[in-house]
Amino acid sequence: MNPNIQAANEEALKRINEGMPVLVDIKFAHEVLPGMRKNIIGHSGPPIDWEDMCGPMKGAIVGVIKYEGLAENDEEAVKLVEEGGVEFVSNHSMGAVGPMTGMISYSMPLYEVKNETFGNYAYSTFNEGLGKVMRFGANNEEVLERLRFMETSLAPALKKALTHTGPLNIRVLMSEALAMGDEMHQRNIAASLLFGKTVLPAISRVVEDVEERFRITSFITDNKQFFLNLCMAAGKAMMDPVKNIEGSTVVTAMSRNGTNFGIKVSGLGDEWFEAPVNMPKGLYFPGYSESDANPDMGDSTIVETIGLGGFTMGAAPAVVRFVGAASVEAALNYSRDMMEITVGQSPSLLMPTMNFEGAPTGIDIRKVVETGILPVINTGMAHKEPGIGQIGAGIVEAPLECFIKAVLRYSEVYNI
Amino acid sequence: MNPNIQAANEEALKRINEGMPVLVDIKFAHEVLPGMRKNIIGHSGPPIDWEDMCGPMKGAIVGVIKYEGLAENDEEAVKLVEEGGVEFVSNHSMGAVGPMTGMISYSMPLYEVKNETFGNYAYSTFNEGLGKVMRFGANNEEVLERLRFMETSLAPALKKALTHTGPLNIRVLMSEALAMGDEMHQRNIAASLLFGKTVLPAISRVVEDVEERFRITSFITDNKQFFLNLCMAAGKAMMDPVKNIEGSTVVTAMSRNGTNFGIKVSGLGDEWFEAPVNMPKGLYFPGYSESDANPDMGDSTIVETIGLGGFTMGAAPAVVRFVGAASVEAALNYSRDMMEITVGQSPSLLMPTMNFEGAPTGIDIRKVVETGILPVINTGMAHKEPGIGQIGAGIVEAPLECFIKAVLRYSEVYNI
Repeated sequence: MNPNIQAANEEALKRINEGMPVLVDIKFAHEVLPGMRKNIIGHSGPPIDWEDMCGPMKGAIVGVIKYEGLAENDEEAVKLVEEGGVEFVSNHSMGAVGPMTGMISYSMPLYEVKNETFGNYAYSTFNEGLGKVMRFGANNEEVLERLRFMETSLAPALKKALTHTGPLNIRVLMSEALAMGDEMHQRNIAASLLFGKTVLPAISRVVEDVEERFRITSFITDNKQFFLNLCMAAGKAMMDPVKNIEGSTVVTAMSRNGTNFGIKVSGLGDEWFEAPVNMPKGLYFPGYSESDANPDMGDSTIVETIGLGGFTMGAAPAVVRFVGAASVEAALNYSRDMMEITVGQSPSLLMPTMNFEGAPTGIDIRKVVETGILPVINTGMAHKEPGIGQIGAGIVEAPLECFIKAVLRYSEVYNI
Repeated sequence: MNPNIQAANEEALKRINEGMPVLVDIKFAHEVLPGMRKNIIGHSGPPIDWEDMCGPMKGAIVGVIKYEGLAENDEEAVKLVEEGGVEFVSNHSMGAVGPMTGMISYSMPLYEVKNETFGNYAYSTFNEGLGKVMRFGANNEEVLERLRFMETSLAPALKKALTHTGPLNIRVLMSEALAMGDEMHQRNIAASLLFGKTVLPAISRVVEDVEERFRITSFITDNKQFFLNLCMAAGKAMMDPVKNIEGSTVVTAMSRNGTNFGIKVSGLGDEWFEAPVNMPKGLYFPGYSESDANPDMGDSTIVETIGLGGFTMGAAPAVVRFVGAASVEAALNYSRDMMEITVGQSPSLLMPTMNFEGAPTGIDIRKVVETGILPVINTGMAHKEPGIGQIGAGIVEAPLECFIKAVLRYSEVYNI
């Protein structure tokens, strides 16, 4: 093994494991995201043009345009896009992440997560809940009303609550949730309740109107995926300091726009290495089947990049029946396999079910290519048509081609 | 195997597994417990006289007497007891249960749990939190103030909240919590948060005063053992219909008063079979050791009687480090061992960590005596002196002697 690569990757692992993501504030996208304007829309995955976007991504964009008041209806929204009136930006390039379609626009409230160790910030939207929601491509009035509630009611309440609770250490929350059977991609029930546990007493104090207080409290307690977006922002905050370590072959981002899967590699700067995204295998909600499903999508794979999600499936035996894994043993084997393609393990994100072993951490592109073991991802599945929403959950692998492309570029850049 | 015994035990298992405990209301002890008066004190375990009670039980009783206004201070309280001014009653005989010292008195609010399948009711107090609390023998003003808060603030709020939420199915909650790594005796963090999830939205609505609302919300969210007492009431409601099945060798209650451990057996009516209680082995809070500890205590072993606690330790790998089990494998082995001494398994209380096997259910006194495998219990440890409180948590076995005595009586009664 090339000793420079080893040292570089150990530095990468050290930075991941030393990262201390803390929820410090709630901000609006227009306050914090670089270059954000009314007609800019952030999306998940590598950059992509309107023509190449999948159905749910287009559906969500139509919804965002209506939410921002740039169009009155779907037809006007599409027209605006086709006339070039809207600019699309990859969330990652703005220091942000969003699940599935990953929509981030001017008026949306965001979690502000600071990596206390390195001083950097990352952002994500709030989770809307399951079913007919914008991140799965739905865009009707119910979806928009919920976004307005999040903007005008939930966000100010959480912001005020944080002034009572103080900053929330997300790594501690992740660690507790792993001990409660969450892998934090498709199972966030414990993490969401732990988040509720920390903010609800403050919410009980700071929201004066009784019906508003009830809606906010219910919104947080009823959403088993509420924590996902916060976990993603924490993941982004943990991975950004790992960028640009000379010689490192560690993956700093994995993300999908519903058409392509992209990865970034520490020693290779900001370049995306892309390949067509795979179709998840999993379980469908009643009335839907694989023929309805859109391929894999979203920035949420940042959680696998830090060692959660599919990588800690062994810690989450109950997720097996939600994502359609073969058995609990299969879940344990996924985690064991991921140890084959990672630099090391987390000293704090432990899996009690696996004798308190640490989560497999720091994906090494060389190991992926050498072993043929692909990063495993627990994911939600969207309907392929715009406007419908979530239809299931499953398991998907990152495409090998991304890793091969990255290894080839690495050989060029480092001349080996 | 005697076929009558087998049929009787299958009926017992069926009744346990069909039991559907539902939290229906909050009531005061004086409203619902038979014969309750101001100078009656309910305690955990089989009946016991003042002279034979352990330190923490005496400490708690002094506290209750002050709480009920029967004495101004500790000396007056002890004098009242010694003059025969107080009557002690085993909680089980009133259809109720309480953890550790298990104090239940006239003014205390109780969970009212109904077994929807059989129509019977059971009761337990609310959990006070950890540390210096009455159930561990503490009795100072801080303890009494908390009891008054529970009586005058928490109880009316929960009662009102239940009118909004409707009855809460406790079996469903138990099942979800098992999938989140609780065994529901020493680890109740998930179950407590799931309970909070159901009641906190209603609490946010029904409590008008902002500081009262904050205290109630914090009290529920801050207490990782909040669910324990509710689980115990559910256990009592599930086991009472199993009593008095002709010929059944299934244990219907296990309980300890800090001096003796007692069991009841279905085919043997209401008789307690007692033996001196064991000392738990476990982990002590900083500053304490085994020489400070009181032997095992409380009605909480009702949760093992229904198949939770030590019996489902395999579902709760994270409890291992709290109770001082040797390893995760040891926890799995405890659950496997308990399958050797039970009639069957639960169809709904599943252990995802053990490939979704059902909890070992229905302790058979014959199997305990034949195999020598003793029911394993996860327990809290109280300081042996009155007035101090919890000093640790650990694992303890039920004493074999209780089971031998019960088997001998069974032979007499059934003439075999």
